[in-house]
Amino acid sequence: MTENFILHEDPISGHCYKIKLTAALLQLPLERRTYSIIKGETRSPEFLETINPNGRVPVLQFGKRSLTQSNACCLWLAHGSKLIPEDHFAYITMMQWLFFEQNEHEPNIATPRYWRKFLGAENMDAAQHAALPGKYALGLSALQVMNDHLTHNHFFIGRVISLADIALYAYTHIAGDGGFDLSCYPAIERWMDNIAATPGYIGMDC
Amino acid sequence: MTENFILHEDPISGHCYKIKLTAALLQLPLERRTYSIIKGETRSPEFLETINPNGRVPVLQFGKRSLTQSNACCLWLAHGSKLIPEDHFAYITMMQWLFFEQNEHEPNIATPRYWRKFLGAENMDAAQHAALPGKYALGLSALQVMNDHLTHNHFFIGRVISLADIALYAYTHIAGDGGFDLSCYPAIERWMDNIAATPGYIGMDC
Repeated sequence: MTENFILHEDPISGHCYKIKLTAALLQLPLERRTYSIIKGETRSPEFLETINPNGRVPVLQFGKRSLTQSNACCLWLAHGSKLIPEDHFAYITMMQWLFFEQNEHEPNIATPRYWRKFLGAENMDAAQHAALPGKYALGLSALQVMNDHLTHNHFFIGRVISLADIALYAYTHIAGDGGFDLSCYPAIERWMDNIAATPGYIGMDC
Repeated sequence: MTENFILHEDPISGHCYKIKLTAALLQLPLERRTYSIIKGETRSPEFLETINPNGRVPVLQFGKRSLTQSNACCLWLAHGSKLIPEDHFAYITMMQWLFFEQNEHEPNIATPRYWRKFLGAENMDAAQHAALPGKYALGLSALQVMNDHLTHNHFFIGRVISLADIALYAYTHIAGDGGFDLSCYPAIERWMDNIAATPGYIGMDC
């Protein structure tokens, strides 16, 4: 793949980080254009008109085409690479974890982080305060599912890092910002160390 | 594929319906085993031990293997079929809509239906009541994204039905049960008619 990739992103977003980490592990160059979600820069008329009518980052642009949804962007970048299992059942199992991340993990683990760290407890409305306990319960449940799986597996799909690990790492490794205590999940902590030790790894602040 | 498929399901679940609709469109036989989520049958010790330690349906079982996450199950069933685009960019675009469904659509459109229709307003706790307005706002936003796209497209990926349509149809066509008024979205209504007219289509009650 010799396309020039442009990532429209906000550096505070774990979704955007997934794409940067994927590109780094694959040594793919990525031009970055940053926008502030908090300042409303992804909802400006120009952004909606030219980048994404849904008003969200990340957007991965290449030539005249673009993709939204972080996991879809990672799948595009990693096509044919070692980050995607060749065996078809292993591939579908990876997809299973990517959907788990979108449906059971991110809404419960990323949102409390955003509310607490960026919006601020004093700016949360009554509905957000009321939703927090439910999100913590479901977030802890998602972390337990991960920990149980990782107790018997080095990475999510056997012994090799894949997009399942990248997608789940993004908001797990900063879950503490949302009030989750990862020290209760030793298999997750060991797994995070393994990811950070992978050649080419970059942190979220890079 | 000549495997015998067993679907562990609850008929009230749109997630399970996706898999049944996929199998019906592809004329794949599916043995069904039903459990009641409301009665706690997916959280019984036996279910957790033998079917899914995460306590959820659907689970698609074939031989000694099984998959969770409805969209991953559909990908497995539909591998190599006309429901998955051959062109790689079209395939990744389909994945983009599957992630959209899991992250932006289902949590906001399926959950109000479950609370209103099955739990019952009188049994909803304070956190659920407080969360409803936010879910409605995000659910309407997701429906608008769909309607905008379908205004210019017959199905989600061009002119041919794919798993993106099946996944998004499942909870959209029963969104009224959750309090959403679909008559505001004419492109969605036309698209739902097109899906229901597809040879092999089955409704959710089949």
